Amino acid sequence: MKLIESLEWRYASKRMNGNVVPQDKIDNILKAIQLSPSSMGLQPYTVLLITDPEVKKKIQAVAYNQPQIVEGSHLLVFAAWADISPEQVDAFIQNTATIRKMPVENLNDYKNILLGMITKNSTEQNYQWAARQAYIAFGTAIAAAAEARVDATPMEGFDPAAVEEILGLKEKGLRAVTLLPLGYRDEANDWLAKLPKVRRAQEELFIMQ
Amino acid sequence: MKLIESLEWRYASKRMNGNVVPQDKIDNILKAIQLSPSSMGLQPYTVLLITDPEVKKKIQAVAYNQPQIVEGSHLLVFAAWADISPEQVDAFIQNTATIRKMPVENLNDYKNILLGMITKNSTEQNYQWAARQAYIAFGTAIAAAAEARVDATPMEGFDPAAVEEILGLKEKGLRAVTLLPLGYRDEANDWLAKLPKVRRAQEELFIMQ
Repeated sequence: MKLIESLEWRYASKRMNGNVVPQDKIDNILKAIQLSPSSMGLQPYTVLLITDPEVKKKIQAVAYNQPQIVEGSHLLVFAAWADISPEQVDAFIQNTATIRKMPVENLNDYKNILLGMITKNSTEQNYQWAARQAYIAFGTAIAAAAEARVDATPMEGFDPAAVEEILGLKEKGLRAVTLLPLGYRDEANDWLAKLPKVRRAQEELFIMQ
Repeated sequence: MKLIESLEWRYASKRMNGNVVPQDKIDNILKAIQLSPSSMGLQPYTVLLITDPEVKKKIQAVAYNQPQIVEGSHLLVFAAWADISPEQVDAFIQNTATIRKMPVENLNDYKNILLGMITKNSTEQNYQWAARQAYIAFGTAIAAAAEARVDATPMEGFDPAAVEEILGLKEKGLRAVTLLPLGYRDEANDWLAKLPKVRRAQEELFIMQ
């Protein structure tokens, strides 16, 4: 299975060498993110692709100074919707009707389920739900990068409020949940590069019933 | 890119045909879950693999009666740790030392960061964090199933407390976050099988900066 080989190959690089990931590989990673599944199909998140060195430097400064943020050529920021509005549900329903070439009225039941859910839930609950969906896309991006033999370091260690300030996310109704620098490992300078992968044993991780 | 083809092939089957997924494919999906990355490498979740038809029937009854739960041959239940204990951190550190053949004392700094984090956070915060990690594994499992051309229907629509009761999760310190029936689509009876996939346009989903 190619995915397993890719997952065996990957690790969370601690240092990258500055080499630039080619555009076709970036396009494939974005395509995989776009195809990633989400609850109800809503995709309640936005992904920022940062290449501006100044912006990356600012983000590094509020992310424990992790070097991969500037040593990678691209930085993905996964940002979940801070809340879910009826307008966003409308846009999703309209998009579904357009792609499936059906009258938008045929989707009224589906729309009402979604509207019922987002109005019953608090802003915080909607955000937490959106964030979980973003994590599926985050996992898919990590797998896609590995398949392309592009290094990607999943990061939660940063000041979300500061990243939101740098990227103007609040005004866009977004909250930063994870970072994913993309680049190439610097094996010589990365203490983690040669260490074996640590995973919980299958007898611990799984219960058969 | 093979992953993109797999993601294009998959969809959230609404009906499955009862055919049994071969064990080698199940093993590969479990292996992909095991290799899935998580914050700090902790893997704060357990995945249950259910094949018992009676147990699947009980879960279906508390999951809006969704037929794939019994029409799939296997059911994965992703369960996040309800809290994170110092003992679980210890076990993780011990496992790391064993796999990397290093004195456990060398990992004291790493251990203290983790212990600091889990004691600073409330039980609910630890659980929410664990659940997010489980979503990465969930996304990886969906991709792995698709690569094996096994249908998998991601589900959040169920009564978590009832599923926890059926599977005795509370006693195990676990909370059910998602379900993933594995099987084969029943194209003739699945209204969704022939409809085009709906995804947000790239200009909506991404921001380049």
